[in-house]
Amino acid sequence: MESTVSKTKEIEPIRWDAATETVWLIEQRLLPYEFKYVEIKTHQEMALAIKDMVVRGAPAIGISAAFGMVLAIKNFTGGDFATYIKEADELLRNTRPTAVNLMWALDEIQACIQSSSQEDLYQNVLEKAKFILADDIDRCKSMGTVGADYIKEKFQAKISRGEKLRIMTHCNAGALATGGYGTALGVIRKLHEENLVEMVYSDETRPRQQGSRLTVWELAHDHIPVTMNTDNMAAHLMQQGLIDLVVVGTDRVAANGDCANKIGTYQLAITANYHKIPFFVAAPMSSVDKNIASGKDIPIEERDHQEVSHVNGVSCTAEANQDLGKIKFCNPGFDVTPNELIEAIFTENGLI
Amino acid sequence: MESTVSKTKEIEPIRWDAATETVWLIEQRLLPYEFKYVEIKTHQEMALAIKDMVVRGAPAIGISAAFGMVLAIKNFTGGDFATYIKEADELLRNTRPTAVNLMWALDEIQACIQSSSQEDLYQNVLEKAKFILADDIDRCKSMGTVGADYIKEKFQAKISRGEKLRIMTHCNAGALATGGYGTALGVIRKLHEENLVEMVYSDETRPRQQGSRLTVWELAHDHIPVTMNTDNMAAHLMQQGLIDLVVVGTDRVAANGDCANKIGTYQLAITANYHKIPFFVAAPMSSVDKNIASGKDIPIEERDHQEVSHVNGVSCTAEANQDLGKIKFCNPGFDVTPNELIEAIFTENGLI
Repeated sequence: MESTVSKTKEIEPIRWDAATETVWLIEQRLLPYEFKYVEIKTHQEMALAIKDMVVRGAPAIGISAAFGMVLAIKNFTGGDFATYIKEADELLRNTRPTAVNLMWALDEIQACIQSSSQEDLYQNVLEKAKFILADDIDRCKSMGTVGADYIKEKFQAKISRGEKLRIMTHCNAGALATGGYGTALGVIRKLHEENLVEMVYSDETRPRQQGSRLTVWELAHDHIPVTMNTDNMAAHLMQQGLIDLVVVGTDRVAANGDCANKIGTYQLAITANYHKIPFFVAAPMSSVDKNIASGKDIPIEERDHQEVSHVNGVSCTAEANQDLGKIKFCNPGFDVTPNELIEAIFTENGLI
Repeated sequence: MESTVSKTKEIEPIRWDAATETVWLIEQRLLPYEFKYVEIKTHQEMALAIKDMVVRGAPAIGISAAFGMVLAIKNFTGGDFATYIKEADELLRNTRPTAVNLMWALDEIQACIQSSSQEDLYQNVLEKAKFILADDIDRCKSMGTVGADYIKEKFQAKISRGEKLRIMTHCNAGALATGGYGTALGVIRKLHEENLVEMVYSDETRPRQQGSRLTVWELAHDHIPVTMNTDNMAAHLMQQGLIDLVVVGTDRVAANGDCANKIGTYQLAITANYHKIPFFVAAPMSSVDKNIASGKDIPIEERDHQEVSHVNGVSCTAEANQDLGKIKFCNPGFDVTPNELIEAIFTENGLI
């Protein structure tokens, strides 16, 4: 269905439509070819949208799941309410295993359900979901300021010479991955608002190419200078002295500061570390999982091998050729960067 | 034109056809979808085939250029022969800047031309080109033995426990990149002949995907176990303890042992080094350029940005969208791995 929601200047991946009492999501799988919203009317549709990555990015997944619960309550037609809510919660909770924000947002909604009377329930949960969305944008902006301030201090000498920064990022930790504004790209947006960004180098981020498809689109949309590189070019660009710093998002921060993020982040952190280039992570406090001691305990989602073998629906390997030996694939969706490779984690509450 | 050359069990990327006095090349741009030979009748066609990567890989480029000179001499129709030969040589020499084997093979042919009488010229140069081809395969096999022996010694304890090796490679340094058998994949072939290979992990090797398109095809063709991973997964696989060693090819070795190879090799070497996983290069002596002190002086080819923005002819970025800010790309075809990250270089004459 076509969107009735206008495409405004600021990127809003998740919008609540008060008129229809439904959620509209940017159909991120169509980007950059098409910028279109899809309507989500039920929590089942929302669970599928999260699982199939219509919406992705740890904070955005959490917000979407919260609105999924709003839709579940709205659509309740009778039977045992507690069982119904439990099933809706579990359906949403089991869509993606790595991002902890999903669990956090659903816990917030559960607490809201528990503390609401039956007549206030729908309105309370809707207000809670809307608050989580608005609050996420506020947190991103605070995080952007925390990160930009730290980076300005660190690169004071360079900036005082009138030079701007060359920043590398991986995957999409932008407006599209959050309620808006972004985590890693929020830091970059803030620096750009202060005219301090010379160039953002965006890793392609195979297999799903969230860098070339989403980050490049998002930065170009906001007229922030962007160069796209394949993931394996990072070391060469650093060797050539073209990168000042790296900033990425995260799906889950362990108690010791290890960070899970999109596959390739760990390799980028090693590469930056080898070149003595500072590596930063930007994350809302809702990404911090104090229940997990280290990154070793973060579950890593193994995804469909067609994401690796195919690009744009076309196979790039010999797998279909029956005369050949069997070909295997691996597709870990995430990896874990140990805390020693991370100079600082920027949150809305300051550095951790 | 369809090939009259049969598709034999052993992969032969370059074949001289005595009946037609032409060269047949595997059309590597069609792999893995189609396994087809194309006929090359002139040195201009050969120059284009090298430039456009019908044939690629440092040793294979050298051999192809040598046969290009055979075709030039065969097709000479009059005029100033010395000028004609000089122009043919330069046309072939300027096709790809990074691989030194190209220069080496053309120098060999030039020396042969200088030392031949007019009546023996064509036959002598043809014999020289055929020798370079056959000799390259012999050298690859020697290199395979040198590498396999070193690796067997290094992993003696593991092998004596009955365990096999998990080997990562990048790009295609195989039969397809040489006269046959391969450099890095020659080492792997030799280990496989001795039943010592558990798994080869093949980096996809964006942007042109020589890993997923060529290496995966080549290993599957020879029934050597292969798993394809995207380039950015290497660090995660190493962290998980799945990789014992890395072996790659090279396009040029500087006097100090720095190695230029396909973009992404340097990043892989840093990643292996971080995990204390040995990183090896396999190269014929013709890849060694003693005229160049260090890798800093190796010219790096900057290639068409469509290789980065597109896969299978389809754009993966927002570049075509005119409403957006301008998007830049970078596409260095190669990078330089410093000698300190390389445990050993395997050549046909032993270690260097």
